Amino acid sequence: MPILNAFYAQSGGVTSVINASACGVIETARKHPDRIGNVYAGRNGIIGALTEELIDTGAEPAEAIAALRSTPSGAFGSCRYKLKSLEKNRREYERLIEVFKAHGIGYFFYNGGGDSADTCFKVSQLSQSLGYPLQAIHVPKTIDNDLPLTDCCPGFGSVAKYVAVSTLEASFDVRSMAATSTKVFVLEVMGRHAGWIAAAGGLVADHGIPVVVLFPEIEFDKARFLARIDELVKQHGYCSVVVSEGCHYPDGTFLAEQGTRDAFGHAQLGGAAPVVAQMVKEALGHKFHWAVADYLQRAARHIASATDVKQAYELGQRAVELALEGRNAVMPTIERTSDAPYAYRIGSAPLDAVANVEKPMPRDFISEDGWGITDKCRRYLLPLIEGEDYPAYRNGLPVYATLRNVAVPRKLPAFELA
Amino acid sequence: MPILNAFYAQSGGVTSVINASACGVIETARKHPDRIGNVYAGRNGIIGALTEELIDTGAEPAEAIAALRSTPSGAFGSCRYKLKSLEKNRREYERLIEVFKAHGIGYFFYNGGGDSADTCFKVSQLSQSLGYPLQAIHVPKTIDNDLPLTDCCPGFGSVAKYVAVSTLEASFDVRSMAATSTKVFVLEVMGRHAGWIAAAGGLVADHGIPVVVLFPEIEFDKARFLARIDELVKQHGYCSVVVSEGCHYPDGTFLAEQGTRDAFGHAQLGGAAPVVAQMVKEALGHKFHWAVADYLQRAARHIASATDVKQAYELGQRAVELALEGRNAVMPTIERTSDAPYAYRIGSAPLDAVANVEKPMPRDFISEDGWGITDKCRRYLLPLIEGEDYPAYRNGLPVYATLRNVAVPRKLPAFELA
Repeated sequence: MPILNAFYAQSGGVTSVINASACGVIETARKHPDRIGNVYAGRNGIIGALTEELIDTGAEPAEAIAALRSTPSGAFGSCRYKLKSLEKNRREYERLIEVFKAHGIGYFFYNGGGDSADTCFKVSQLSQSLGYPLQAIHVPKTIDNDLPLTDCCPGFGSVAKYVAVSTLEASFDVRSMAATSTKVFVLEVMGRHAGWIAAAGGLVADHGIPVVVLFPEIEFDKARFLARIDELVKQHGYCSVVVSEGCHYPDGTFLAEQGTRDAFGHAQLGGAAPVVAQMVKEALGHKFHWAVADYLQRAARHIASATDVKQAYELGQRAVELALEGRNAVMPTIERTSDAPYAYRIGSAPLDAVANVEKPMPRDFISEDGWGITDKCRRYLLPLIEGEDYPAYRNGLPVYATLRNVAVPRKLPAFELA
Repeated sequence: MPILNAFYAQSGGVTSVINASACGVIETARKHPDRIGNVYAGRNGIIGALTEELIDTGAEPAEAIAALRSTPSGAFGSCRYKLKSLEKNRREYERLIEVFKAHGIGYFFYNGGGDSADTCFKVSQLSQSLGYPLQAIHVPKTIDNDLPLTDCCPGFGSVAKYVAVSTLEASFDVRSMAATSTKVFVLEVMGRHAGWIAAAGGLVADHGIPVVVLFPEIEFDKARFLARIDELVKQHGYCSVVVSEGCHYPDGTFLAEQGTRDAFGHAQLGGAAPVVAQMVKEALGHKFHWAVADYLQRAARHIASATDVKQAYELGQRAVELALEGRNAVMPTIERTSDAPYAYRIGSAPLDAVANVEKPMPRDFISEDGWGITDKCRRYLLPLIEGEDYPAYRNGLPVYATLRNVAVPRKLPAFELA
């Protein structure tokens, strides 16, 4: 068997555990020096492959690579750059193959969501049609949890844990204050198309917290919502609201787009949480507080789920093993075999069945009244937020790795991005 | 010595460690059954004393009281209710004494910030003039860190740790995304009058993060700010901004009040972060993300500072000891004796010197250019965020205590709040 190099890149929005997958890929590759020469990472994702900006991960000591396991974000840079279709921009795919050929790359590991799975699939096909042998393996990653054929996606469990913990803590706070002050707390979370992340906020109901979850799957009905808040505040003295950024009216208008304009007449810059909070204030007169978690939720490695970290690593590891087993155009997956005690095995799925397919949240994960989650959803979520995997700390702050990111010398002429 | 009961109440905005002070008070009181009979907590702070809604903490088992040490929020309820001056509302102070007399209360522990210290002082004075012996001890608490005569205030260190950790994590995120997407991340933090909390965000500069801190102490200059952001993004490719909710223009207008109105013409509901983010977008064209931490920061017991938790407990403990030593109208304080290695002792300060005095952040804690913190500030902050004190977890979520809060039978006629 020839010794070939591997390419690895991070794509799309980063997470608190995508580097754990990188760690799994690189550490596993290093265990097979008879098959894999070096792992070259794309600087800023696939762009690095197109522009031949490769990072020599071989220049990093084992401790630096190991530290990736507990470092949030994308250590090599990610990108929001979707390769066009083969028909529209064959030039880019051909350039990828050229770069891979120039650097002796025979393994292509792409770490991302649905769009990336599509790219990865196309790369695998093109390598065949161009007669360049390349094994393309997709490593799943997305906080949106919307990839098909895998029980869950690395990144999601940690966001879910962050949202559940934060909702619980802030709910305790508002409960303390409600007698004379704040009665309603609103937390906005990510998830434009699906309510997976918002659903995690619904877990605090098990802790006696009156909570209303606003899902993108349930069309927003202001009158019903206000009646529900009124009911909960009358009953408990306070309540919490977890609103997905994707929550919208029946006509598709997002709550965040409602009405507010700045001094220049520009639509307000977002924030479903302040809109919901103001609504409650105007209709019911309750004092409110609101928070928008934004990047904090997906970067919160300090409260990552141990299950999520472990799976992110294992899927990176398994991606390399699949490549060494001669597989191509596949993605390692999580196959759940039991909810409690939680058990799963690592499987794999063909990329053509993964690419461009979004897994919606099942309707029976949302309670009939639309304000919370069902037992089925709870059974699904609980194992994913299980366990803590704390980073090391120094001087009060987590020790997160910043790699040297040494450039691999270029061998090809420059390339202009489309 | 007669056995007297103690009263304990939580006042103002709660924190992630105010219950650790409650734990210190109650556990210490329980060690002196020869002097202290029971600790009655005010339901919803001082209001519980006025309305004779007392909670029998003696009904809680030792484990429940111990669990307070790692539970955020106010276990007995807090309140935003400022007693008026003695002259204006002597009736309320007299009622307090009546309730204390009815329940054999000889010790008054009030856990709060500057306003509460004032109330505590007045109670101590009135008990003397009314001939009812009561020892009033104030237990300091405020995330604003603005009490005088103590090196720091319980609650602050944990918020500072949360803000520093969150800023570090989100900055790693934006650094990953900057090549093709978000270049500026803005985090809004609490601190209307002083920049203590925002300053904690400045700690990430030690980790190579380009960060701009917007303090309430420094009048906001839009042109200078935009020039600074432009400079940092050109140099590093991205930057983070930590903006205090108290950041304002020279005329005193808060950034959060700038210009935005909803469909009804109401001033926008707040958020300095979106205002700053929009400013950057309009002037420099950078894609941005913003977060508002709000309650999440002060409730984040999951990432509390071990130093802060320890001090919160010790100050509660010392408050009881001071009472047993016969002291009145005092507050236990933190006296720092060394920055590194960090060392402190517990002292005490007379309440008349604490009440109504705000400790500003020294100007020499802010860098000359106004965008960050000085070494002096760093030396001050680092010990306060040192150490982690993780709560226990069950099913992926922290185990936080909800007490039974059993009511003490009433002995007096009802009382109408003013």
